[in-house]
Amino acid sequence: MLKNDLLIRAAKGEQTDRVPVWLMRQAGRILPEYRAIRESLSGFKELVETPDLAAEVTIQPVDILGVDAAIIFSDILVIPEAMGLPYTMVEKKGPYFEQTINSEADLKKLTSTNLNLNYVFDAIKETKKRLDGRVPLIGFAGAPWTILCYMIEGSGSKTFSKPRGLLYKNPKMAHQLLEMITESTIAYLKEQVKAGADVLQIFDSWAGILDKKQYAEFGIRYINRICEEIDEVPITVFSKGANFSLGELKDLDCRTIGLDWHVDGKTAREIIGDEKTLQGNLDPCALYAVDDVLIQKVTEMLDEFGSQKYIANLGHGVYPDTDPEKVKLFIDTVKKHKFHQ
Amino acid sequence: MLKNDLLIRAAKGEQTDRVPVWLMRQAGRILPEYRAIRESLSGFKELVETPDLAAEVTIQPVDILGVDAAIIFSDILVIPEAMGLPYTMVEKKGPYFEQTINSEADLKKLTSTNLNLNYVFDAIKETKKRLDGRVPLIGFAGAPWTILCYMIEGSGSKTFSKPRGLLYKNPKMAHQLLEMITESTIAYLKEQVKAGADVLQIFDSWAGILDKKQYAEFGIRYINRICEEIDEVPITVFSKGANFSLGELKDLDCRTIGLDWHVDGKTAREIIGDEKTLQGNLDPCALYAVDDVLIQKVTEMLDEFGSQKYIANLGHGVYPDTDPEKVKLFIDTVKKHKFHQ
Repeated sequence: MLKNDLLIRAAKGEQTDRVPVWLMRQAGRILPEYRAIRESLSGFKELVETPDLAAEVTIQPVDILGVDAAIIFSDILVIPEAMGLPYTMVEKKGPYFEQTINSEADLKKLTSTNLNLNYVFDAIKETKKRLDGRVPLIGFAGAPWTILCYMIEGSGSKTFSKPRGLLYKNPKMAHQLLEMITESTIAYLKEQVKAGADVLQIFDSWAGILDKKQYAEFGIRYINRICEEIDEVPITVFSKGANFSLGELKDLDCRTIGLDWHVDGKTAREIIGDEKTLQGNLDPCALYAVDDVLIQKVTEMLDEFGSQKYIANLGHGVYPDTDPEKVKLFIDTVKKHKFHQ
Repeated sequence: MLKNDLLIRAAKGEQTDRVPVWLMRQAGRILPEYRAIRESLSGFKELVETPDLAAEVTIQPVDILGVDAAIIFSDILVIPEAMGLPYTMVEKKGPYFEQTINSEADLKKLTSTNLNLNYVFDAIKETKKRLDGRVPLIGFAGAPWTILCYMIEGSGSKTFSKPRGLLYKNPKMAHQLLEMITESTIAYLKEQVKAGADVLQIFDSWAGILDKKQYAEFGIRYINRICEEIDEVPITVFSKGANFSLGELKDLDCRTIGLDWHVDGKTAREIIGDEKTLQGNLDPCALYAVDDVLIQKVTEMLDEFGSQKYIANLGHGVYPDTDPEKVKLFIDTVKKHKFHQ
């Protein structure tokens, strides 16, 4: 039983006494307590792959910042790795895949069943044990399109011109790969739920590099397959940069739509309608402001979104150089806010 | 007198017999003839700063590809350099500024008058001489917001969290710097026109990282100042990623709005109205497609935009690994297209 079930209630569209709040990337990045653990290790992946330590950094923001949910410390790229493409995380540069998918023949080297991701499920079990019902635990995965981007490009990119090019050069192959990723992701998320995840979030970090038609065909379609297959827990879909597709995202078989900072709460609600819960969307750069300005920005956001069917968050993952005191102020401002209705 | 004035006529909103076509980044990047010159030099900047060579690579796409305009080979970062922040272009990484603007005191180190950019004006003069009226020459500059991004961040960035943070931390300082950049840019563009530029384009490469309100205050406002000051030649404004602001860009005191590939021609025309000329917007990744698919995509684009008040282009600079034959096919498809009206 959860002692604080605000996030679950909001995600299910039930009445809440106050707005729940958490931050994307809260586990890892900003806390000195996180950095101390991270620096004692060989690298980012050792932390991801060690359940005991992953659980520890997952819980830090609950203890230190007072967020209403924990999100399991992991990486969206564990899926392509488990499918057959190992990656390294290069300090200050980001992920790098030695092998990528260049042809239909390469697809045969991949597996989409019996993925070895037990270290993630063990981290979830350990986290749930240590949380002891204080707050819900969020599990997550990358959306198929974003995972395809890395499997084709092999690293981050300013343009992701290789995966985008594939959609013109060989759309059939793109669909085959998206099918495999989707199948893997469904199995992965179902196991996360079995291990104890109370809510799931799908991150489509590179949604915004496609146009609306492409995103419907190569993005939303596969996200919806995942949503349709999982009805055990509420799902949040965060399609970063794809506000041009909000009118289509509203029909997804999910409970919550995550929003980036390019759309205001009123506009998002108008487009998405009253049915779904909305999550977001303070510009993470607002956390660099002096206190008064930060409080004003958070207050404006809250009044735009309203008190119900809403989960306060940033519009992007918190940036690494953010002062944790500003994050606390963000969280406290949400918790103390009085809505005038 | 121009022998081919299609681009100028389209930019002025006059009737044209066919749609003019050129490509962003056509000068440099894709042609083997360009690479041969580039490889004989110490670096990118030597090419930018040598008028004779800059003129040569500016004209290559006119001779080889058959575009309806030349665009002067240069870089938007010559402005921050002339204002006092020298940069280097690091191979495969992009621009790097050793000094950046961190405080109001740093602003005093900058100059916004008597900028030494004669090498650009000399390149324009030399190009005009060699073009001998075959096609118009496009001059350009970065928009103040995009230039500020580099002056604050000091390099490319996934998030540009420093300049975005400044808008929250010290908006007054942001406005001061934007004023200085705007003043420099007006003088710079006026000199380009005196040297022979027939059309001007303002590139706001990082428009899309702001929200709509911020872009109005820190972006559009300064672009409009530039547009209001220059009435010698038609101006095109390309605010990449800022389709959320099309309804405001339509009121700019410029002739043409450049579009990225995230908006279709019909929607853009509906929002912007009938007054302005539109330019764009094929996804550069469509140039990776087989010929039939490429022809189909170009044809769809042309039919959406229509035959008048339209300049065919890509929705982003052509990517370096693009086959020049595909670029020729793009250009030829535009030239041969029959509109059914």
